[in-house]
Amino acid sequence: MALYSLDLFGVAVFAVSGALTAGRKSMDLFGVVVIAVITAIGGGTVRDLLLDRRPIFWIEDPTYLLVCVLAAGATLAYVRFFRLPRHSLLVADAFGLAVFTFIGAKIAYEAGVPAPIVVLMGTVTGVAGGIMRDILCTEVPLILRREIYATAAIAGAVVFVVLTTLGAAGPLVAVPTVVTVFGLRLTALRLDLHVPSPRPKDTDPTSPDEGR
Amino acid sequence: MALYSLDLFGVAVFAVSGALTAGRKSMDLFGVVVIAVITAIGGGTVRDLLLDRRPIFWIEDPTYLLVCVLAAGATLAYVRFFRLPRHSLLVADAFGLAVFTFIGAKIAYEAGVPAPIVVLMGTVTGVAGGIMRDILCTEVPLILRREIYATAAIAGAVVFVVLTTLGAAGPLVAVPTVVTVFGLRLTALRLDLHVPSPRPKDTDPTSPDEGR
Amino acid sequence: MALYSLDLFGVAVFAVSGALTAGRKSMDLFGVVVIAVITAIGGGTVRDLLLDRRPIFWIEDPTYLLVCVLAAGATLAYVRFFRLPRHSLLVADAFGLAVFTFIGAKIAYEAGVPAPIVVLMGTVTGVAGGIMRDILCTEVPLILRREIYATAAIAGAVVFVVLTTLGAAGPLVAVPTVVTVFGLRLTALRLDLHVPSPRPKDTDPTSPDEGR
Repeated sequence: MALYSLDLFGVAVFAVSGALTAGRKSMDLFGVVVIAVITAIGGGTVRDLLLDRRPIFWIEDPTYLLVCVLAAGATLAYVRFFRLPRHSLLVADAFGLAVFTFIGAKIAYEAGVPAPIVVLMGTVTGVAGGIMRDILCTEVPLILRREIYATAAIAGAVVFVVLTTLGAAGPLVAVPTVVTVFGLRLTALRLDLHVPSPRPKDTDPTSPDEGR
Repeated sequence: MALYSLDLFGVAVFAVSGALTAGRKSMDLFGVVVIAVITAIGGGTVRDLLLDRRPIFWIEDPTYLLVCVLAAGATLAYVRFFRLPRHSLLVADAFGLAVFTFIGAKIAYEAGVPAPIVVLMGTVTGVAGGIMRDILCTEVPLILRREIYATAAIAGAVVFVVLTTLGAAGPLVAVPTVVTVFGLRLTALRLDLHVPSPRPKDTDPTSPDEGR
Repeated sequence: MALYSLDLFGVAVFAVSGALTAGRKSMDLFGVVVIAVITAIGGGTVRDLLLDRRPIFWIEDPTYLLVCVLAAGATLAYVRFFRLPRHSLLVADAFGLAVFTFIGAKIAYEAGVPAPIVVLMGTVTGVAGGIMRDILCTEVPLILRREIYATAAIAGAVVFVVLTTLGAAGPLVAVPTVVTVFGLRLTALRLDLHVPSPRPKDTDPTSPDEGR
């Protein structure tokens, strides 16, 4: 029950982030809603397809779709009249990343796949919706930026696996996982922290083929 | 039978639109054919994956693939010798959108999913192939443009659901659905109509993070 | 057994190509690993989803994931200290394309689908991972470039179908298929060969709609 609420909340938050991103483009109203829906249910859909969980969560329970549409509509109405706090898009995205990483890891764990797959599933569930949003809106995907992003999801999924292996369950796993991802991501944004970026030495400005 | 013909026609039309878009890029001949095939069968493939309809329509019946390749080849041959009427790409895309929205909604309806999912499935089946085409060709997706696009698909899918709920069937559903999408999209293009675009007030030019 | 080794080698090579491409972006370390993993298992994942082979190969056998992470890590460590030979990214990509085209065609053939689908499946398995890599890294996809790319995969998949139909099996099919793709692609790169690009006559610079 608490998990279901958390899932719906994650969906709403990602729908908001989709609506905010799409709303900046010269896209029509329903186009914005479509992007919001894809952002919100994209990660879970990829997870369900990969794990062959049928029917897909939003086909079985249309509440998800309703929440997406309401969240997108409320966002569009809000930004028409009020000014959003700065960075609201990034915070919404960070919270969605945290919630979906936890839920993706949990569902993969319950499906009985090996630990490395649990970590990958958490990460993919967390990042896929946002990647779809950014690609559809022709933005540079957040995952491409220097600040910790996929790293935060991976760290959270590892926390999930470690705590679960130690026998923890329920909120004792959920809270640390979500806090790890959300905290890491927000700290990285605030302090402009980043894991060192590899700088390959093979970049050869005289070679046009390699420069791509 | 009429439905099968319509489906093949939609596939051919989207293959033409894929070949036209890809043909403008410095892509080789078979690359163009691959893009045409992906454009034509992309929407239906996403639909079948989401609804878990197996085998996927074009794996079960290779006629679809044959039609794609023939349509792409004919398009490439034609544009080598003749000049296409203006806007032919947009008209082809609009008709594909209309046909695939109807077929997507019909298949979802027959799969017994709830009405909101029928609308979403119609929309996704209609827009997914064109989105893949535009992303693969590094074009700004049509769905991002101001003129009614996803809106036309949603409107058509709603018409489908309303008419079906009222007890209509066959051409009495198909024709109004296709006409709604195609007509809305063409009218929008001709009159430069668009659903108002939301203008968020949170855009803060002094904030580089929000500007993304 | 030899096939399994070849598959793992293809995965490693594509992980290297993903790590090299992502490493050029201002992406953090784990972001690079995520891109490497997606590049390496993307094509096979699409193949397994389309053919409904469950569980997906890397969920069943986490060795694939381990190989990806090791190959990505080794690549990042290597480029930190040494200079890669020129064109190493393109050669790695070409070899991955060749191996995955063969494996995709073989798995589709064994699933009993018709010959045109075998060719398409080989092509899609070969190109999908690289397309995902390029889209995620906001590069112009290799498939969009003039030099033979999809064409090489299609040619190899056709060689596979012809030889299999003639009764050949094992290395007598694998070697010619892989050599066809890899050889065609490398020859095209070296000689700047390309299949003629279609030049549509409908491009109308006065028409902004068609110019998209």
